Parts: sequence; structure tokens; C-alpha cells
Amino acid sequence: MSCSGGLTLYINLLSAPARALTLLPRGIRAPYEEKNISFFKGEHKSEAYLKIHPFGTVPAVTDGDLTILESCTALRYIASKYDTSGKWYPADLASRVRVDEFLDWQHTKLRKHGVGYYFNLIFAPMINKCEPDMTLINSHKEELKKVDADMVRHFIKGRNFIAGEHVTIADLIAACELEQPMCANVTYSQPIMDYLDRVKSHIGPDYDQVHQKVRGFTKSMLNK
Amino acid sequence: MSCSGGLTLYINLLSAPARALTLLPRGIRAPYEEKNISFFKGEHKSEAYLKIHPFGTVPAVTDGDLTILESCTALRYIASKYDTSGKWYPADLASRVRVDEFLDWQHTKLRKHGVGYYFNLIFAPMINKCEPDMTLINSHKEELKKVDADMVRHFIKGRNFIAGEHVTIADLIAACELEQPMCANVTYSQPIMDYLDRVKSHIGPDYDQVHQKVRGFTKSMLNK
Repeated sequence: MSCSGGLTLYINLLSAPARALTLLPRGIRAPYEEKNISFFKGEHKSEAYLKIHPFGTVPAVTDGDLTILESCTALRYIASKYDTSGKWYPADLASRVRVDEFLDWQHTKLRKHGVGYYFNLIFAPMINKCEPDMTLINSHKEELKKVDADMVRHFIKGRNFIAGEHVTIADLIAACELEQPMCANVTYSQPIMDYLDRVKSHIGPDYDQVHQKVRGFTKSMLNK
Repeated sequence: MSCSGGLTLYINLLSAPARALTLLPRGIRAPYEEKNISFFKGEHKSEAYLKIHPFGTVPAVTDGDLTILESCTALRYIASKYDTSGKWYPADLASRVRVDEFLDWQHTKLRKHGVGYYFNLIFAPMINKCEPDMTLINSHKEELKKVDADMVRHFIKGRNFIAGEHVTIADLIAACELEQPMCANVTYSQPIMDYLDRVKSHIGPDYDQVHQKVRGFTKSMLNK
């Protein structure tokens, strides 16, 4: 697994931030290469991948000599370097605050509880060969209701997208993280569903394409 | 509690990100106003404060009409707007990646386990009128050892500071988060202790001054 010279994303479409990452170069038409890292083959813990990402998590991004281990950092970097429109990570400080504020907030709210719900429902029983821990899963589901309410009252709050009238990297993370538990039957309020429709419509066919794998996989796991 | 026109920090020095925030305008000599929000008087849940920070957490930052609810976002904003040296949040993309990568990473690693350790040892017994949950506290302490190792092998890795030769906003967060459990007897590896010494020495007397309250408070709680 060697780094090519240009922008390379090491991703797996089962991961929400990996989906957000692949949507960005598509949206800004930046040339990039995509390498799939299979969780089931243990490629994220392989010697070759650990040379790129020493912590062995997915995604990672390389661009020439630069390696980036965090998705939100990589989104900021790719938009700053390759987005000629300046819309995906706006330089205007007030708009940038809206984008950064959501990206900082979601780590311990939307992502924490989305992953808490999804991982414990879908992956933990498979890994640990046990029944799902429904108390834990339902506690994350309850927290996702608060996340929904906080997103509506603060982060969306009458706007089309998090920073205003254009989709930004904050919306890519928001939509991809919201989609993950939704694949596994979590439901959201109407304002969140309307917001997701706007993001999907703004992005176009790539949106459903990058979500196809996680939707199919989750359905097959729930019907087992 | 009304917003003044200029930069205003709503902080409590018992909070690590609040300490990081107050060190920045001091370091760049930007004019600002500081308002203490007392946890013990419940001011963070008061009607007046909830008008500024709808989620009722500390810190918050206002600057004219702009309100910022997330510390890392506020650090990026204050450095971008007020730091004329350009060193605290470097514009050069490769250096900026190093700063952003640490800020994104620490939410669910250093901060998660630092707060997990400190809150459950110091605050939870007081709030819930019970003995500290030492199993939980020790699990966070164990995770802090991994955090220490990951910081040494990746985020510091032979450099003086996270992004190189100058303290940035990433080091403010790193040092203030590392100090919190250290007040309550967590110990770190020598490279982390050396790193903390470098940050402290670079910042000067403000460093100990902003840590005085949390050190004194923690000592008094542990000696109760």
C-alpha cells in the first residue's frame, strides 16, 4: 500500500466520515484516488495500512508527503486546497464559525450516539457472538432524540444548510452521520428529514451511491 | 448578562477548554472581557446564560453579533481574527493540518478520558452523594496512558510543539486538558512532562495563573 503523489482517500463506505470524505472531491470535481480498506479482511490493522494511519482507524487521507488521520481535518484541508468556489469551507469568519462549530460539536453528540447505537446493534453482536445490549442501544437512541432537537433549534434553525444557502463540509458530515442509524431504523423529526432531502438534492446521484453499501449491509444484518 | 460589543469570554477556570480560551487573547494581546460563570451558583443553567449558550455549557464566546458555542471553534476564530503574528493558527495548510488534526482527535481521546477521570473522581461523588466509582475512574486512567503514548508517538513526535516550533491553539487545548487529571494525581510519561514544561515556559506566568483555581479546588476536594 504505497502513497501515490496526489490526493488519496483510504476509506470504507460503511464508515460515515469516509462517505462524507468521498463526497467532497466529487462535489468540487477534484482529482483523487480512492482505496477501499476492508474491515472484514482486517486491512485497517494490516502492517501496510498502519504505516499510513498509526492508530489503524478509517479513513485516512494522503496528499503528497502529507498524511491526515482525522476526517474533519481532511475535509477542511481538501476544501481549502482544492475547492475553487470557496463555498464548501467558507473563508468568511462568521460562516466558517458555523461550519467549525458543528464539526466540533458532533464528535461527542451526533457521532457518539450514532456510532453507539449502530455499532452496538449491528457490529457488537457479530464480534462478541452475543445478543445486542438493548439497554445500551436504547440509551443511545434516546440521546439521538436530543441530538435531533439540538440540530433543529441551533444548527439548522430556519436555514437551508448549516452555514446558510450552500452545502458545506459540515453538511456532508451531518448527513452521513444521520444516515447511519437511519439505515438501522432510527427515525428523525420532520425538519431533519427535510434537511436531509435538501442535502441529498443538492449533492445529486452521488449521495445515494455512496450510501448504497451501508444501506444494503445493514438491511442484510437486520434480516439475519 | 448582556453581550458587550467586543470579544467576550464566558468561562470558568475549572474547565480545561475555558483555560485554553483565556490564554489565547492574553498570548496575542487582544483586548477582551472575561465573565465568570459559576457552576456552583448554577449560572450555566440560568435564563440569562441560556440566551447566550442554549445548551448551557461553559465556555461560550461572543464578538459583536457572533456567538460561538464550541471552544475549538472559538480558538480558531480568535486566532484568525486577532492574531497578527499568524503563528497561533497557522495559515500554511500543512501546519494547519497538524493543529486541526489534534483538535479533532482530542474530543474523543484526551478530553473524553480526562473528563471521565476527573468528573467521576471529583464531581460525581459530590453531586450524587456517593463513593467514587473506582472501576470507571481507573478505566479512564488506563485510557489516559494510551492517550499519552499516542500523543508522544504521533502528535509531538520529536517536535517542540504540536505544529512545530511555536505554540498554537492545539497546544493550549493539549496542555490545559493534560493538566486537569494531573491536578488529581494522574502522572504522565517524561516526554509529556517535558512537553508541558515547554508550553508553560513559552506562555509565561499566565500559565500557572489560569491553573491556580483548578489546582487549589482539586486539592481541597481530595483532602476532604
